[in-house]
Amino acid sequence: MTATKTFAFVLYPGLTPLDFVGPLQVLGALQEFGLGFEAVTVAADLEPLHTDVAVSVTASHTFAQVPEPFGLIVPGGGAPTFAALADERLVGYVRRAASTAELVGSVCTGSLLLGAAGLLEGRKAVTHWAAMPMLRAFGATPLPQRWVADGPVVTAAGVAAGIDMALQLVAELAGEEACRMVQSAIEYDPEPPLGPIDWLSLNREPMESWMRSQAQQGLAAHDEPRIRLLAD
Amino acid sequence: MTATKTFAFVLYPGLTPLDFVGPLQVLGALQEFGLGFEAVTVAADLEPLHTDVAVSVTASHTFAQVPEPFGLIVPGGGAPTFAALADERLVGYVRRAASTAELVGSVCTGSLLLGAAGLLEGRKAVTHWAAMPMLRAFGATPLPQRWVADGPVVTAAGVAAGIDMALQLVAELAGEEACRMVQSAIEYDPEPPLGPIDWLSLNREPMESWMRSQAQQGLAAHDEPRIRLLAD
Repeated sequence: MTATKTFAFVLYPGLTPLDFVGPLQVLGALQEFGLGFEAVTVAADLEPLHTDVAVSVTASHTFAQVPEPFGLIVPGGGAPTFAALADERLVGYVRRAASTAELVGSVCTGSLLLGAAGLLEGRKAVTHWAAMPMLRAFGATPLPQRWVADGPVVTAAGVAAGIDMALQLVAELAGEEACRMVQSAIEYDPEPPLGPIDWLSLNREPMESWMRSQAQQGLAAHDEPRIRLLAD
Repeated sequence: MTATKTFAFVLYPGLTPLDFVGPLQVLGALQEFGLGFEAVTVAADLEPLHTDVAVSVTASHTFAQVPEPFGLIVPGGGAPTFAALADERLVGYVRRAASTAELVGSVCTGSLLLGAAGLLEGRKAVTHWAAMPMLRAFGATPLPQRWVADGPVVTAAGVAAGIDMALQLVAELAGEEACRMVQSAIEYDPEPPLGPIDWLSLNREPMESWMRSQAQQGLAAHDEPRIRLLAD
């Protein structure tokens, strides 16, 4: 009889829901393989939290109820995610839970929250492409990949990249056959109507400038982290 | 001054959240282009609804508050979606809203809810691959594509296919440049770790049998639709 291995997805107000719903749907399916995995969501309390789109989300557990998850996944977002960098209740939970977790993951600007918890120092990491320079503020080396694993810390690129990262985790934890089953269950067989992102012709400036403005807004009351993040 | 064109995502208990969160994130971004679009979520009431994973979701509006949306998107799921086929409050909303909407969409088994509302009669449509034969119960012709547009009705394949369908809608409603911007904002540049689904070697039986068991469960108390769905 092995203990349940819990993946805890960390929720907070204002986040981008696709950042966690994609990987939650993927890692939630791990439950089906009888290997003792489960996936829950955790937050400071069990009240509905607004998001960056018109839906609210409510966690299944409080931080206090899941102090030592097997794995931790932190989603990102815009200004509210930058504001969360200065939320010691949230960052403290991430830091404490990470100290005993076997796996610490993030999606999009969620990696900045890992950084704020001191978990990216000296590590290679990725985040949303428009926030990449901000990783240096936490001692991380930005690596432009779909996901980056460095020891127990796995970071994914922007938003939708969390699905790819989560499938990779399923392949590692439950095998390739399980990964293929989950992928076919969620029919993840992408056909972006205009093809993949054309990075060479992408005009990056508007989104990069938007990302900096989100940091300005989110950290308006917090000089030190704002100045550090926007130094580059 | 044009009226706001509202996309209403229809929520109900037990749904698969990725079915609507992907397209909501994509169509929610339409708001940024100043074309008068907005995206909301609607449900029978504003209480948190459980889902098929460990998170609850709360709609931004009630059905009564959004009687005549511009566009309607119906997500799917397992047994609870089949149960919803017999929920006249939900199906009635879909039917009435569709009668004035310019666009009616679904993701995954959400297309069966469009069918229950009488919207697929004589149309080509798609749903989750493991539920495809069930479309015939509603007079639809199953077409195995990522998404299928037939008049004002657009159906997407399983779960993750909703993201592709929503990007296609953005391209049609706001142009390819807008579509590319949204795609890069959510960094939808998929890299499934084991590649695309290998349909030729996929063992379909377990998932097809699971889907039939979900129909049995969800419609246990409703002979007529269950027998119709499982006839094929």
